[in-house]
Amino acid sequence: MADSKKNVLVIGGGAVGAIAALNLEVGGLATVSVVLRSNFKPVNESGYSIESCDHGILKNWKPSHVLPQVPDITNQSLPPYDYIVLVTKNCPDVPPSISSLVGPALPATNTHTTLVLIQNGLNIEKPFIESHPHTTVLSGVSLIGSAETAPGVIVQDDRDRLLVGAFRNPNIDVALEQNKAKEFVQLYGKGGKTDCVYSETVLHDRWRKLVYNACLNPICAITGLDTGRIRLADGGIEGLVRPAMQEIVQAAKAKGVELAENVVDFMIEVDPLDIYLSPSMLADVRKGNYIEFENLLGEPLREGKAAGVPMPTLEVLYQLAKAIQWRTKEAQGLVQIPPKRNAVA
Amino acid sequence: MADSKKNVLVIGGGAVGAIAALNLEVGGLATVSVVLRSNFKPVNESGYSIESCDHGILKNWKPSHVLPQVPDITNQSLPPYDYIVLVTKNCPDVPPSISSLVGPALPATNTHTTLVLIQNGLNIEKPFIESHPHTTVLSGVSLIGSAETAPGVIVQDDRDRLLVGAFRNPNIDVALEQNKAKEFVQLYGKGGKTDCVYSETVLHDRWRKLVYNACLNPICAITGLDTGRIRLADGGIEGLVRPAMQEIVQAAKAKGVELAENVVDFMIEVDPLDIYLSPSMLADVRKGNYIEFENLLGEPLREGKAAGVPMPTLEVLYQLAKAIQWRTKEAQGLVQIPPKRNAVA
Repeated sequence: MADSKKNVLVIGGGAVGAIAALNLEVGGLATVSVVLRSNFKPVNESGYSIESCDHGILKNWKPSHVLPQVPDITNQSLPPYDYIVLVTKNCPDVPPSISSLVGPALPATNTHTTLVLIQNGLNIEKPFIESHPHTTVLSGVSLIGSAETAPGVIVQDDRDRLLVGAFRNPNIDVALEQNKAKEFVQLYGKGGKTDCVYSETVLHDRWRKLVYNACLNPICAITGLDTGRIRLADGGIEGLVRPAMQEIVQAAKAKGVELAENVVDFMIEVDPLDIYLSPSMLADVRKGNYIEFENLLGEPLREGKAAGVPMPTLEVLYQLAKAIQWRTKEAQGLVQIPPKRNAVA
Repeated sequence: MADSKKNVLVIGGGAVGAIAALNLEVGGLATVSVVLRSNFKPVNESGYSIESCDHGILKNWKPSHVLPQVPDITNQSLPPYDYIVLVTKNCPDVPPSISSLVGPALPATNTHTTLVLIQNGLNIEKPFIESHPHTTVLSGVSLIGSAETAPGVIVQDDRDRLLVGAFRNPNIDVALEQNKAKEFVQLYGKGGKTDCVYSETVLHDRWRKLVYNACLNPICAITGLDTGRIRLADGGIEGLVRPAMQEIVQAAKAKGVELAENVVDFMIEVDPLDIYLSPSMLADVRKGNYIEFENLLGEPLREGKAAGVPMPTLEVLYQLAKAIQWRTKEAQGLVQIPPKRNAVA
């Protein structure tokens, strides 16, 4: 493959996107443009500062191109990208929609560009296959511990493991989709600093990760405890995490996805206790950011319930996450409330 | 009644205790000593600053006596109090126990002093009837909106309604217990600024208040939303509050307590939306204080489950509250955790 380098657009250069861009660049098979929003200014001026258990310490590291917004390839007469990698958060309950974000770089009629969704949760490909019916859409399931501790400052304290496969697009030949997935694995893994693997079982990978992401992630966000502390807290695992995870295992099973018997214990222990890792939703709540609870928690809950699986724990966690999201919407001015009345005479 | 004033010891002079002391003093039938802990210094020096929807604005208001600790009546050769009113928080999961706190002013052999528990939740009288078998124990169920916004500064923005009855102590004559309850209602209500009522249905009163306190109170604490905002938030009422409240209504029914049909709607709307009232657990979480979740949420959950009532919502809320309590215990140094390991090479 790759006589010449592939042109890759990474949208979202936060904790996970910066490490993705780094892996693609160090492999030497790709030229990476990263679209940044909140951290554009510091990264554009002096690059990333990265402390990584995979890559060591990098000062002032920059991808080939740093962009303040998604380029409009039609208006700017740019060639289409070979890959567009989406590593933004995905909150369908908060405007703007992800597909409107990608729009300028991905015409609805696209056949050339492969879209890679390194995003969590279920059914995230569906809006794209609808709006871009001839686009190959790949699934990236990332298990990484990484945080942006200040704009442009990335601390990766748990190694990057990426599973890549093709979402099934009925308008595209299966072999072609799978070849694109295998090619992307090469681009991403060539640098040898990451554990990037091709997978034919995308749905299995996604449900498997939901054992963590629909359960431990919101439970940490709601309780304010990281994954080490929730294991130490009274009843945190047996009262909350394990019952929630077992509901996901049952929902997956009802959807035809048989997870390994030890998956619950594996996911409970996947983050080393003594690094006290804050999963994404907890980090987001602490920063006053929106949480990705609809794809991570809402979709598996809806699928499980529709398949007749009792999901009492997930149901309550979902409703609490929705209320917490509303709190952020109020803080961000997305919802307004009546003024406070002074009740004291 | 009351040729001479009754000697009343109020233990706990926070948001609710200060208003209780005020009501007892303005009635003119009691001499009140208040035991303060965290706010002793400011109140002892310059009294309370009170803004109250019942009492108006009071500056530098002091009860007859302000004490820094519970007096040891045996060692100090003091006469026993006529009433000891407990208005502290009640967290049986956090030492020291409430009964050890009261001990110095209430010998185990006491027959004279009547103990009044203006505290929420179920089964709170049981440890006292065991440790003080000949003490009359009264139940005070308070519906009040009051907060201590700074030490000694009380803002009461919803009126005080107190239901007083006798807990059944099998070692004491029923009529005698009930007379004590009626006498206390007179002491407390005489000033006319409060709505204090005698009740023969203590268990009913307590379960009724749990419709609010086992549900709205922890849901607000967990989501960080006050009682106005939870009514405005997406799904807050229909997804969380109402299902939780219905579980309490069913648990009460299983325990022989039939609540009025409209109790759920009543409790949802009991706090005016536009005063955005923070219930006690939310206020406690914001201050980094322990929450009273065991008596408010744990006891009704255990009683309901033991009676065969399905309580999936309360179960998850309870486990989350327990994890949040553990977070406070860690912050307060009551639990220790292993040191953090640096995962970056």
